[in-house]
Amino acid sequence: MKHARLGPVSALALLILALPVGAQQTATRVAPGSVPEFGTMWTFDAPPLDYWQARYGFRPDQTWLDHLRLAAVRLPGCSSSFVSEDGLVATNHHCARSCLAAVSPPETNYLRTGFLAETRDQEVRCPGTYLDQLVSIEDVTAEIRGAITTTTNAEQVAQRDAAVQATQTACEKESGLRCQVVALYNGGMYSVYTYRRYDDVRLVFAPEQEAAAFGGDPDNFTFPRFDLDVSFMRAYEDGQPLHPQHWLSWSEAGAAEGEAVFVVGNPGSTGRMLTLAQMEYLRDVTYPASLADYQRRLDVLRALSAESPDAARRYETTILGIENSYKATNGYLTGLLDEGIMARKAAFERDFRARIEADPALRAQYGSAWDEIAGAQLELATFAPQSRYYAMGGSTLLSRALTVVRLARQAALPEARRLPGWNAQALERARQGLSRDPSVDEALEIRQLTAWLAAARAELGDTDALVRVLLRGRSPEAAAETLVKESLLADAAQLKALVEGGIQAVDGCVDPMVAAAREVEAAASGYLKRAADLNTVISGNTEKLGQAIFAAYGTALPPDATFTLRISDGVVKGFPYNGTIAPYKTSFYGLYARSAEFDDRPPFQLTERWKMAETKVDLKTPMNFVSTGDIIGGNSGSPVVNRAGEVVGLVFDGNIEMLPNRFIFTDEVSRCVSVHSLAITEALRKVYGAAHIADELQRARR
Amino acid sequence: MKHARLGPVSALALLILALPVGAQQTATRVAPGSVPEFGTMWTFDAPPLDYWQARYGFRPDQTWLDHLRLAAVRLPGCSSSFVSEDGLVATNHHCARSCLAAVSPPETNYLRTGFLAETRDQEVRCPGTYLDQLVSIEDVTAEIRGAITTTTNAEQVAQRDAAVQATQTACEKESGLRCQVVALYNGGMYSVYTYRRYDDVRLVFAPEQEAAAFGGDPDNFTFPRFDLDVSFMRAYEDGQPLHPQHWLSWSEAGAAEGEAVFVVGNPGSTGRMLTLAQMEYLRDVTYPASLADYQRRLDVLRALSAESPDAARRYETTILGIENSYKATNGYLTGLLDEGIMARKAAFERDFRARIEADPALRAQYGSAWDEIAGAQLELATFAPQSRYYAMGGSTLLSRALTVVRLARQAALPEARRLPGWNAQALERARQGLSRDPSVDEALEIRQLTAWLAAARAELGDTDALVRVLLRGRSPEAAAETLVKESLLADAAQLKALVEGGIQAVDGCVDPMVAAAREVEAAASGYLKRAADLNTVISGNTEKLGQAIFAAYGTALPPDATFTLRISDGVVKGFPYNGTIAPYKTSFYGLYARSAEFDDRPPFQLTERWKMAETKVDLKTPMNFVSTGDIIGGNSGSPVVNRAGEVVGLVFDGNIEMLPNRFIFTDEVSRCVSVHSLAITEALRKVYGAAHIADELQRARR
Repeated sequence: MKHARLGPVSALALLILALPVGAQQTATRVAPGSVPEFGTMWTFDAPPLDYWQARYGFRPDQTWLDHLRLAAVRLPGCSSSFVSEDGLVATNHHCARSCLAAVSPPETNYLRTGFLAETRDQEVRCPGTYLDQLVSIEDVTAEIRGAITTTTNAEQVAQRDAAVQATQTACEKESGLRCQVVALYNGGMYSVYTYRRYDDVRLVFAPEQEAAAFGGDPDNFTFPRFDLDVSFMRAYEDGQPLHPQHWLSWSEAGAAEGEAVFVVGNPGSTGRMLTLAQMEYLRDVTYPASLADYQRRLDVLRALSAESPDAARRYETTILGIENSYKATNGYLTGLLDEGIMARKAAFERDFRARIEADPALRAQYGSAWDEIAGAQLELATFAPQSRYYAMGGSTLLSRALTVVRLARQAALPEARRLPGWNAQALERARQGLSRDPSVDEALEIRQLTAWLAAARAELGDTDALVRVLLRGRSPEAAAETLVKESLLADAAQLKALVEGGIQAVDGCVDPMVAAAREVEAAASGYLKRAADLNTVISGNTEKLGQAIFAAYGTALPPDATFTLRISDGVVKGFPYNGTIAPYKTSFYGLYARSAEFDDRPPFQLTERWKMAETKVDLKTPMNFVSTGDIIGGNSGSPVVNRAGEVVGLVFDGNIEMLPNRFIFTDEVSRCVSVHSLAITEALRKVYGAAHIADELQRARR
Repeated sequence: MKHARLGPVSALALLILALPVGAQQTATRVAPGSVPEFGTMWTFDAPPLDYWQARYGFRPDQTWLDHLRLAAVRLPGCSSSFVSEDGLVATNHHCARSCLAAVSPPETNYLRTGFLAETRDQEVRCPGTYLDQLVSIEDVTAEIRGAITTTTNAEQVAQRDAAVQATQTACEKESGLRCQVVALYNGGMYSVYTYRRYDDVRLVFAPEQEAAAFGGDPDNFTFPRFDLDVSFMRAYEDGQPLHPQHWLSWSEAGAAEGEAVFVVGNPGSTGRMLTLAQMEYLRDVTYPASLADYQRRLDVLRALSAESPDAARRYETTILGIENSYKATNGYLTGLLDEGIMARKAAFERDFRARIEADPALRAQYGSAWDEIAGAQLELATFAPQSRYYAMGGSTLLSRALTVVRLARQAALPEARRLPGWNAQALERARQGLSRDPSVDEALEIRQLTAWLAAARAELGDTDALVRVLLRGRSPEAAAETLVKESLLADAAQLKALVEGGIQAVDGCVDPMVAAAREVEAAASGYLKRAADLNTVISGNTEKLGQAIFAAYGTALPPDATFTLRISDGVVKGFPYNGTIAPYKTSFYGLYARSAEFDDRPPFQLTERWKMAETKVDLKTPMNFVSTGDIIGGNSGSPVVNRAGEVVGLVFDGNIEMLPNRFIFTDEVSRCVSVHSLAITEALRKVYGAAHIADELQRARR
């Protein structure tokens, strides 16, 4: 799964408002049997026991919940879990990619070859990798709110931040563990999450990248799927394998169709609290522009690739990457263009606003938020093309020209008068960026700039200042060729002199791109400042609405994802696709089929190990399966468990229909995709000669 | 492939207009390399040699074309070809269904078990089956047109029909063969097609229905696909196997990706000459109503099925059938809702109208046709719900009530005053229909009628006469229950008396449905007559436009399908689907995969033969493949040949994206689906113990 938008709790920038007393009493619990549109990323301190009881006839006790919480461990950017009494940790292959690259000896590439420790001696430490085990969750909302005594915005923020810091420090001092205050519902609720960290994590097993990501970019975000996206690590303590108190048994049977299953992991971030106006802006402005941009870049790269096999090889990875971004963005856009999805969102917003309107205190605090957001979005739309093109992203050199000019000008100003974000560190980062190897791919620069100039002229018009300054009456082709060929910005020495020479050097520079940037930088900064101001209005009101949701619904709606531990419920089931039905699972047969059906061409070629294993493996073995669990980037590697708490699979992606779930949860056709537990043990035994790991998984079931 | 709309040349009902001399000189050939929107169903007397040369670098000679034409043979409703020097004929399994049912001995069902003649002795004659080999095509346009000397409509039709008959008779007398005058371009061009008929056709081999139609209704109209939809027959002459002069070699390698291939077969009928107004009517009126009707019936059947396992079994086949109709109709509607497709159609219509407008003679003859069609469609739309509901199709009994009343009243009128279509034969057919077992499924009758009454009330309103007469102030549930339970029409004796008693019996009948039908039959006939008149306007102008197309473009555009032999070109290639890529072929692996992935449940279960053969077959064997050939119902069983004229597969279906090709040909994602030649020989040898047939196919290659 790419495009994970992960991250710890975001810095809260705005006003904290005390919740009116009793507001939570207006909350209603999710109707039993219905699917919550805000999804099912439940926190462990508010599990929806009644909902599960109604939906699955299953009401886990606290022991079951605690066991899952303590067996699950968070990796940087990913999820995982303990799966043996000797501290074995199961996660996705793509969560171990940086470790595989880091520990590959010079002559080998473990991403290509895979990795297997035959013995514990051969288990190799992953630099920088650690596991966070969630030991406890405590509601500290009253504590944080109580610390806020002033009425001015900036002071409230400072008091809140101080209270958060104090709470974390006190918690860490008392527990000797790591503590993090998590702002749920954009600050509607604060919880302190306490983690035990394990920082000696060693690589045990990973298949070849080609088997883990079989089908490559084409099959990414889709199902049916045939990926062994798994890796194993082991936690060590004091140089010995950890014996965790809680670890998950490996299911002998795997998931059956129709079975209820639970995903335990750390979803990164969702956009489910966006208002209709924000979604419309994404639909009508942001995403169409992104897609046009991707398309323009793809057209250029494909045209260049068609000119020589060498160019085709050079641009292949870039093309696949952009194609993937196109696919993801198009998936989001498809959701926003779906009238059914927008109607559901509109219905929710009506209910939400009605609840706020019905309570005078809530109305006074939150009632204007929707219209303020909508107004800001409308205004942003009026100069969106200008904001886009005046950032001068038309080519590497053009972008560099703007950075050179802006760096010189911003550096000459006192910090208070600088553009948003241009503090001392930002200046330093810009300088460092400009000190790297400045060489460029000239042919690509010219083509990209040509296409960008043509697009800018079409969108901004002939009379726009940026268009006039860059084209100076020439065709996009002619202008791009001259601008690129005459630029000094690809020369390290000249660039260095320019950066070090500050405003004087920039003002005297004869580079045509720098000259153009000098002329329009003030206008560009104007657009940037105006957009930043409007985005501040939006983010402030967005935070208000997060709090308003909590005030109106309480924990009946799970909070937006925060890359903290959640438990999502779902059912194992296929879905309608391609005019027929996608099965709930794929099989090893299907892996060999998809390879044969593409004549074993990349990215559908089988690795030698899999070719040799064909006669040994049971081809009926389930490979991947789908369920209606609610996941997003950050959930990678999450264990999928059955009612017995056994691992039936590891989440590694969603189908293409799941992309719109970023905005509103649906489960008619959207599915999360997991590696089946049996695929893992069968492949370990028959393909990878790793029976000892399969034995460790299957040996001691609880 | 279901929903084939097959049939010989339709009876032409309207005015024949002489083509202006020289009109064909305005024709332009299809631009080399472009895809003709009218598709690629070329006639053998106008092969697009320049187009093929430009597109594939392939310019077959007349010998190649003659060989294909003479090796291809038409079956009733299907296509096929000679594939051995001993008269072996290859076609689809579903083209042999009626033969399989007819020749099954009492204790066996060959549809279930399959059929294999181990020796020629065991080859069993298919009753009523014959093969038509197209011996020659001759343009008789001048002859038919020359026979029309009058200026009045009815006389022209009579003269034309007499000329067609005379031409056919003369041809048959001269050749001793079967002759058919085919009206291409709705009469823009007339050709006499001469056939040699082989009427001793014997069944040689058919697999089990479950293997031939693996995936059943869900997978119908889709790809990826895994069907062995093949059967073999043999032509006999004088009790001995025929040794045809022309038969197709079986390809040793099958089709490769990117290869140009040709489909030789008999497409039944297309709707590519429809005007935009006609397509809009289908989009806005016909198809939405059909889908609502299917949905209502499905809702009723599913609700009944949920009530008992017995009911579930009883309605299963009906449900699958309606689901299939829903899928097909929805596929057509999807095409009409596609703005890109409609824009292409609109662009064509603009070009076409401009050509007609540019020529005074053409404008005078054809210029008003579009607006007359559009006007009639608009008027039809004004009473479309009335036309639909006044046909009283709400249940079997209700429909029967209307038939009883109408039969009595029409029979009492002289033929000239009767409703369109109610000639003596129609009266007789109606009487026969009413003499069959009249028993009904009462529960189903009541539920269906309830749903239909509710829909009628919602669409027509409370004050509509039909609604008032049927409901009489009751709820749909109460009305339906009374109407069905009190009806006499399910009783054979009472029904017989009613039919035989004529108007008097009908007028005295106390059956509440008959009473209702008596009250509204006149109004119903009014709607019927009005619709028939408007449809006559439409069909007359549609014929004009067919001739106008020929006048404007000549044979640069292939004629609409007429269930006569065509050759379509295309390329073997996959297509984008499900967020990724569908391969150009499937494999035996994939068959076993799809079965395993549905846990071997119907319609994805493997037959015993295939289960047992798993270790014997080469799982890499290609199963089905896709190409951009242009096909429609009637093409079933068409050989797909390569440049060498070898059979690389047999067409048996299209993917779901091909359904809109009924209206306009596109090849971005639409594909025709064929059984791969290698799947057939591998299955014959390893699954069915029919090496002798594989040998016969592969033995003597030309």
